[in-house]
Amino acid sequence: MIHSFTNDYSEGCHPAILEALTRSNMEQQAGYGDDEYSKRAEQHLRNLTEKPDADIYLVSGGTIANLLVLSSILKPFESVIAADTGHINTHEAGAIEATGHKVEIVSSPDGKLCPDDIQPLLEKFPEYHTVRPRVVYISNSTEIGTIYTKMELIELSEFCRTNDLYLFMDGARLASALTASSNELTLKDIACLTDVFYLGGTKSGALFGEAIVITNDNLKKDFKYHQKQRGAMLAKGRTLGIQFDTLLKDGLIFDLSRHANNMAAKITKALKKMDHHNFLTDSDTNQIFPVLPLRTIEELEKRYDFYIWEHLNSEEAAIRMVTSWATPEVKVDAFIADLERWL
Amino acid sequence: MIHSFTNDYSEGCHPAILEALTRSNMEQQAGYGDDEYSKRAEQHLRNLTEKPDADIYLVSGGTIANLLVLSSILKPFESVIAADTGHINTHEAGAIEATGHKVEIVSSPDGKLCPDDIQPLLEKFPEYHTVRPRVVYISNSTEIGTIYTKMELIELSEFCRTNDLYLFMDGARLASALTASSNELTLKDIACLTDVFYLGGTKSGALFGEAIVITNDNLKKDFKYHQKQRGAMLAKGRTLGIQFDTLLKDGLIFDLSRHANNMAAKITKALKKMDHHNFLTDSDTNQIFPVLPLRTIEELEKRYDFYIWEHLNSEEAAIRMVTSWATPEVKVDAFIADLERWL
Amino acid sequence: MIHSFTNDYSEGCHPAILEALTRSNMEQQAGYGDDEYSKRAEQHLRNLTEKPDADIYLVSGGTIANLLVLSSILKPFESVIAADTGHINTHEAGAIEATGHKVEIVSSPDGKLCPDDIQPLLEKFPEYHTVRPRVVYISNSTEIGTIYTKMELIELSEFCRTNDLYLFMDGARLASALTASSNELTLKDIACLTDVFYLGGTKSGALFGEAIVITNDNLKKDFKYHQKQRGAMLAKGRTLGIQFDTLLKDGLIFDLSRHANNMAAKITKALKKMDHHNFLTDSDTNQIFPVLPLRTIEELEKRYDFYIWEHLNSEEAAIRMVTSWATPEVKVDAFIADLERWL
Amino acid sequence: MIHSFTNDYSEGCHPAILEALTRSNMEQQAGYGDDEYSKRAEQHLRNLTEKPDADIYLVSGGTIANLLVLSSILKPFESVIAADTGHINTHEAGAIEATGHKVEIVSSPDGKLCPDDIQPLLEKFPEYHTVRPRVVYISNSTEIGTIYTKMELIELSEFCRTNDLYLFMDGARLASALTASSNELTLKDIACLTDVFYLGGTKSGALFGEAIVITNDNLKKDFKYHQKQRGAMLAKGRTLGIQFDTLLKDGLIFDLSRHANNMAAKITKALKKMDHHNFLTDSDTNQIFPVLPLRTIEELEKRYDFYIWEHLNSEEAAIRMVTSWATPEVKVDAFIADLERWL
Repeated sequence: MIHSFTNDYSEGCHPAILEALTRSNMEQQAGYGDDEYSKRAEQHLRNLTEKPDADIYLVSGGTIANLLVLSSILKPFESVIAADTGHINTHEAGAIEATGHKVEIVSSPDGKLCPDDIQPLLEKFPEYHTVRPRVVYISNSTEIGTIYTKMELIELSEFCRTNDLYLFMDGARLASALTASSNELTLKDIACLTDVFYLGGTKSGALFGEAIVITNDNLKKDFKYHQKQRGAMLAKGRTLGIQFDTLLKDGLIFDLSRHANNMAAKITKALKKMDHHNFLTDSDTNQIFPVLPLRTIEELEKRYDFYIWEHLNSEEAAIRMVTSWATPEVKVDAFIADLERWL
Repeated sequence: MIHSFTNDYSEGCHPAILEALTRSNMEQQAGYGDDEYSKRAEQHLRNLTEKPDADIYLVSGGTIANLLVLSSILKPFESVIAADTGHINTHEAGAIEATGHKVEIVSSPDGKLCPDDIQPLLEKFPEYHTVRPRVVYISNSTEIGTIYTKMELIELSEFCRTNDLYLFMDGARLASALTASSNELTLKDIACLTDVFYLGGTKSGALFGEAIVITNDNLKKDFKYHQKQRGAMLAKGRTLGIQFDTLLKDGLIFDLSRHANNMAAKITKALKKMDHHNFLTDSDTNQIFPVLPLRTIEELEKRYDFYIWEHLNSEEAAIRMVTSWATPEVKVDAFIADLERWL
Repeated sequence: MIHSFTNDYSEGCHPAILEALTRSNMEQQAGYGDDEYSKRAEQHLRNLTEKPDADIYLVSGGTIANLLVLSSILKPFESVIAADTGHINTHEAGAIEATGHKVEIVSSPDGKLCPDDIQPLLEKFPEYHTVRPRVVYISNSTEIGTIYTKMELIELSEFCRTNDLYLFMDGARLASALTASSNELTLKDIACLTDVFYLGGTKSGALFGEAIVITNDNLKKDFKYHQKQRGAMLAKGRTLGIQFDTLLKDGLIFDLSRHANNMAAKITKALKKMDHHNFLTDSDTNQIFPVLPLRTIEELEKRYDFYIWEHLNSEEAAIRMVTSWATPEVKVDAFIADLERWL
Repeated sequence: MIHSFTNDYSEGCHPAILEALTRSNMEQQAGYGDDEYSKRAEQHLRNLTEKPDADIYLVSGGTIANLLVLSSILKPFESVIAADTGHINTHEAGAIEATGHKVEIVSSPDGKLCPDDIQPLLEKFPEYHTVRPRVVYISNSTEIGTIYTKMELIELSEFCRTNDLYLFMDGARLASALTASSNELTLKDIACLTDVFYLGGTKSGALFGEAIVITNDNLKKDFKYHQKQRGAMLAKGRTLGIQFDTLLKDGLIFDLSRHANNMAAKITKALKKMDHHNFLTDSDTNQIFPVLPLRTIEELEKRYDFYIWEHLNSEEAAIRMVTSWATPEVKVDAFIADLERWL
């Protein structure tokens, strides 16, 4: 039977979540995120970020988190700056524009943004004929598996504050970033250096759910109106609360992401041991992009599912391999064995 | 301990759903609604509606279902007609307008629309200075507990077809409507008489989820683009698929709604037996609106939660009592006993 | 030849405007409203309103003025309250909703709003499930010819300030209102009692153009970005500046509107003298709505154009007669003579 | 006194327009574009394009023409492709995005698009997670003065038709393009090779106004609803009709643009005669971009206004010189003399 390395949302959720859902099932709880479990999940995040005043909202997925946060911040003529690889630019079917706002893009081979990328977009001319950038959108880990160093994030954060820009981190895979072997950042750092971010549950062991954390006071007011208006407020908000309570209370989310990263690292390491050093990007998170001969890919496709990310020439392509909290080590070992055989 | 009759989303979900989620948990399934469970849920709906060509999409809640369906149909200058009590008009924080469309309203004491309500809105003048109505939005059961008779729905449907209007039914509480004692309609009737509707799971035993059923071919094309753009597509679509497969395969959703209706009917019947016939609306679904003396309400509030819906005069108010699949009969009996005591 | 009383935009503009356009034609002027004529027009308005800090923007028409002002003020979940007869509700093809905002309406037989109309719309429940009203939109004169008394506008203004609502006056026919025989208000009053309003040129002697006057500091920032984004900024802004400079410098706009009002009043007076007192609304501005027998209407239609506004019964209808700065008194006299003959 | 070469909208309009406005001033005409002059202007365009079925709409400016046309065509998830220099991408303050649509951009040194630029944007993956391109937006002449050859436009047109894309030409400076010395295209060619375009009046001798010409039947329906909704319909549509009637009836618009082009060509020729061949772009329209030493620019700025377009290094910059129908040859001659002196 074919094993899929296509993405990190092929399985259900960590069993502890199902147990918690079952245990609490017949309790009556308030709706729309006012239940006890959501309150607990919020408190865990305030503790982890050391931001006792943070406002936290649990929503169902990444696209709705992105469109909700951005449309709540931006005035009609304000834009958000993103890397060309940014999820809001490529894979959300124009969700941000549908709320009325321009996504201004910067070409970025490693999927990250730095002040030098952004500066040129601030030099608009003539005044009021152009959009005005107001938010910088970054992903950590990025859509191509890379992560921000502490210094990179500090510099970007300072640049944004100096230039009256809000910094928003898409954290659909933030738990993976924070548990990567080269990671230098903590959740507290993220909370201090951004104005708003979210911690993704969908790709880190939950059935679904992203936890939006707003630390900048300017961005807190009336957020629930926006949330309701965009259809981002579940009647049974408990369903999100219970999941994040479970994932956060003993750091389960990080254990799960560490496993995912380890599984990807095992493949990376094995490839390097085979003296194969060709990767599209330098990643120690749960998404890796090895460049392989097409004949090898063809053989691997008989037993595994994965995306061919980019055809590089007539003989090679980069593939995207994604591991998750649910990836069995035996499948990784089998994949490595097949790699050895067909490379 | 206080029991809540505030709404029908205070508890989790029917245990069979948790069992199904647990059973399937470690299976690898395709994302974004292409999993086997979603396919099965879709097939159940095609069978129940006898519409083998219906397109079906599972989304997380009612507001996002409404904004998604309407924004996928309407051109910028087209409007949707709704009763003034309609959910899209009152309780979605302007979600439809946020997608660019006017909601034209009709005053409706019973929460329902009929051709005579709509006709005047079609007589616009002068041409192209006004919006053009294109969709009629109805709820069944309505926001105030009433349901459509078969003849009412047939007349409305014929009127819409004659006037080039699409008929869209918000079915957040459709299972409750279809199992009401006075109901004359089947799911097949609904599918034949509307162009698009949804069957609500959130208020009928699911953790969350509404199943949108598109029967009119004109409305099918490219719907997934709209779904993605509005953030209405879950990565782990299985979470919705498993729930609707469970609720639909043996008619569980209807059993659960029947129970909810019965619990409300028991209260209604008890009140009438006490010779109390004053209700704001005539409902045999799971939402009832008895008019009670304020002193009675005050006593009841010590033991039960419910909304005061409308103050009618200095001595009386209508309250909203909502029962659900999870309402224990003992709580209903206790409530009736307290009513007898304090009325 | 048929004379049209259909509207107040059938002719071109007052000759003084054409002369001013001709005189200044070959001067080089800055674009986008930074020309000397626009500056002068702005200064006239600051003087007339005694608001030296008012921000003023000249745009091409009423619909774009309305959508520009409202979309610049409202956050996505905020609404504007209007009379059901309000132009933004009836005759702008959903322009406000197309910018994402709900128009909440109040039934108003005389086309005006008072605090008692608005109060019920402020009592929203539950919080953040509903839109939040933020602007009250009124027209003066209204779409049915009536005008606000000083006390009415003071009460409305105070109510708005108390309730954190902005008051916005659509002044497409403000010059007509201010020169009506029963008028009690000055342009200074309007500026003091509203937060933003516009003075219409199109219907008062210009080729086109409305002058938006923003007096509330909160509403001034970045307005030009909104203006550019909505396509409401003319490259040759001088075309608007020259017109308003001409209309305002010696009060020409008021002379022209006074003439229009007088022509309508002459018809009203003549009808009353014929002992015909049946009018749909009580108007001393340039729009009047006499109720006439259908057979009279039929005869009049042979020589004059006007709208049949509303059929009242099988024998009578209200017609809309509109006079303008350009209406020749001889045509009014002829119309009165024909009325005498056919009534 | 300083002469401005900053843009082509510094003066009023050709005197023939003022005469026509004056001559027709007191005629009563229908509103909203239904006047006789607009009908005549439309007929001129149908004749010139040899498209008897073309639908034509006159609007006030380029930004509103662009946002109106694009929002009338695109479904919410559909995008428009433009050059990075395209006006809709750079200088309309996010007007297109404000109507809900993504502008996808292609880097283009000469401001033009060709099939090879567009093809990569059509290869989207995975389906329905991305926007779908539906319109290709080009400008002729472009924002940097270049024009399309006949072969370029034919290839682009065929590519669009093959790929189910509409081709939309922003013709704010189309009259200049069509009268450029290297031009190979006719208005008929433009009408045949695009689906919708506009012919700009604002920059070619009118006070304001762009004439939108829709040749593709698919794009015609209900356009007036869109026009009204976006505030793009003048009550006194005659003001536009009279201008275009005047500009088109004897080809006046082309004579005026030819003069503008000649004035720019005179400067270009003079520079080349001075053996100065450095221009940012290759233009024979009314916008030229000579690269000059900063010290020369400094001297010229004492007597002339123009934009410094781009600083190329510490010693040189490209300036933008724009000529118009109103540019006096004596000013051009003086400028050339000053160039000779300071270069």
